[in-house]
Amino acid sequence: MRTHDEYKRLVEARLSELLAEREAAFGPGDMPKLLCDAMRYSVQAGGKRLRPCMLLAACEMLGGDIEEALDFACAMEMIHTYSLIHDDLPGMDNDTLRRGRATNHVVFGVGQAILAGDGLLNYAYEVMLKHMLSHPDRQETCTKALYAVARGAGVTGMIAGQCADLWAENGRETGEALLTYIHLGKTAAMFKGAVVAGACIVGADEKQISALSRFADAFGRLFQVTDDVLDVTADEAGFGKSKGKDEEEGKLTAVAVYGLEGAMALSRDLRNEALSCLSAFGAGADYFRNLTEEMYKRNH
Amino acid sequence: MRTHDEYKRLVEARLSELLAEREAAFGPGDMPKLLCDAMRYSVQAGGKRLRPCMLLAACEMLGGDIEEALDFACAMEMIHTYSLIHDDLPGMDNDTLRRGRATNHVVFGVGQAILAGDGLLNYAYEVMLKHMLSHPDRQETCTKALYAVARGAGVTGMIAGQCADLWAENGRETGEALLTYIHLGKTAAMFKGAVVAGACIVGADEKQISALSRFADAFGRLFQVTDDVLDVTADEAGFGKSKGKDEEEGKLTAVAVYGLEGAMALSRDLRNEALSCLSAFGAGADYFRNLTEEMYKRNH
Repeated sequence: MRTHDEYKRLVEARLSELLAEREAAFGPGDMPKLLCDAMRYSVQAGGKRLRPCMLLAACEMLGGDIEEALDFACAMEMIHTYSLIHDDLPGMDNDTLRRGRATNHVVFGVGQAILAGDGLLNYAYEVMLKHMLSHPDRQETCTKALYAVARGAGVTGMIAGQCADLWAENGRETGEALLTYIHLGKTAAMFKGAVVAGACIVGADEKQISALSRFADAFGRLFQVTDDVLDVTADEAGFGKSKGKDEEEGKLTAVAVYGLEGAMALSRDLRNEALSCLSAFGAGADYFRNLTEEMYKRNH
Repeated sequence: MRTHDEYKRLVEARLSELLAEREAAFGPGDMPKLLCDAMRYSVQAGGKRLRPCMLLAACEMLGGDIEEALDFACAMEMIHTYSLIHDDLPGMDNDTLRRGRATNHVVFGVGQAILAGDGLLNYAYEVMLKHMLSHPDRQETCTKALYAVARGAGVTGMIAGQCADLWAENGRETGEALLTYIHLGKTAAMFKGAVVAGACIVGADEKQISALSRFADAFGRLFQVTDDVLDVTADEAGFGKSKGKDEEEGKLTAVAVYGLEGAMALSRDLRNEALSCLSAFGAGADYFRNLTEEMYKRNH
């Protein structure tokens, strides 16, 4: 098994290839340079590349060749990036900064940022399909992987969570069930899409896919609950001068529903649940165990 | 061969099934009702359903079973609809009315409209992939069809054209080459995606696909040039009280580049070109011949 940094380097190198700058501005059949620039601006803004690396790790853990999974991993990162560009738009979270840099619409304008997001989502599918066309011997496993990505990103996955998240703003609706729905959708669904796609590429069996799905649900919720807790504790520790970001935006958070202590306890349960889902995979799952522990330790 | 209205009825019935209202508001793993409502609001807003019907007609003309193409046709219409929702947003064209009804963001808010558009684009792929999973014997032809849809909708297709269209606003850049690029992208690319996908599903050969591609390029440009001309002539005839919509938005139009007479002459050339691309297909192509003549007669 490779390390996270090794996966990350592979992903970032391939992403650069896939988004290589076009010389033509508006050449026939080519991607306009402006669109390409806007897409690359956000894809290359950094980040942990968690989703694509998890896809590669799932593939490698089950004995697959990660070269065969690399385009799917990059597609996951493109989809994740499109969701951030659209999330930051006025009408959504209206953020002007992300990771210390101006957000896409601040640099390129709202219209081009909408298109850059649309472009990344569609290009993700184009990249995966192009890979499939050049590997006709692996159509069936690739179709399953593509479907896992589509489900994770889609109207019963990430977009469902974003819709509910927006709906729940400013206390319009609250409660544990809705919070869980939001966390499973906006956060866990893409992790699930990643690990299930990685497993499908190897031709994993139903039992393996089910265990990885349950792991992703728990890990995704742990990720989001941790985020909600840090939003408050970083603030209380004086690191932020204003309210936590989600609190400021009137989002429904784990701290609002469970209180700080309750949210800390929930993250302990979710950590244990995530680890127990990995028991079937032996030492090969250490990558996912480490990720889970690192996430948990961020506020314990 | 069926008529346009027959194709249209099939498409609209299947679209309704695919977007069936969910009972759960935020049930686990289900599409939130709010998202579903917003997606259906725009999908069911009417229109000629040109792209899905052209996909079915291409399939049937080449001897295919249109039942096998129906989900691909519906996916085309979902992608077309998402592009309209996003085009209407503030930051893009900022339109409050489309076909006499309030636009999606006016009814559901900007954030939910962005998500409804994202949802339709992603759901289009989900629907096509689900169809593929249940037809493992047709993986190769379906993958080719999916790729044709992705290219038509994507960063070298429709989104490229939208990006250039937005860039060219208010005279920032002009000229024949850019106008052609915009028309091929924002308008022709989706027609091309439709007819090529329909042909791929039947397993058409390269020559057939090439002829249909060239037809779609000419037909798409004819469609857009006609639109540009009508924008001006309907206004001059007193049907509009204000300037033509595209003119008002500062778009680069065929009338701006060629003048009214020049644009009329161009549409004549494009009609002839479109018809000549159909010569290889015999009487089976009458559906496309009729479409072309109807389009041409709108301003001749």
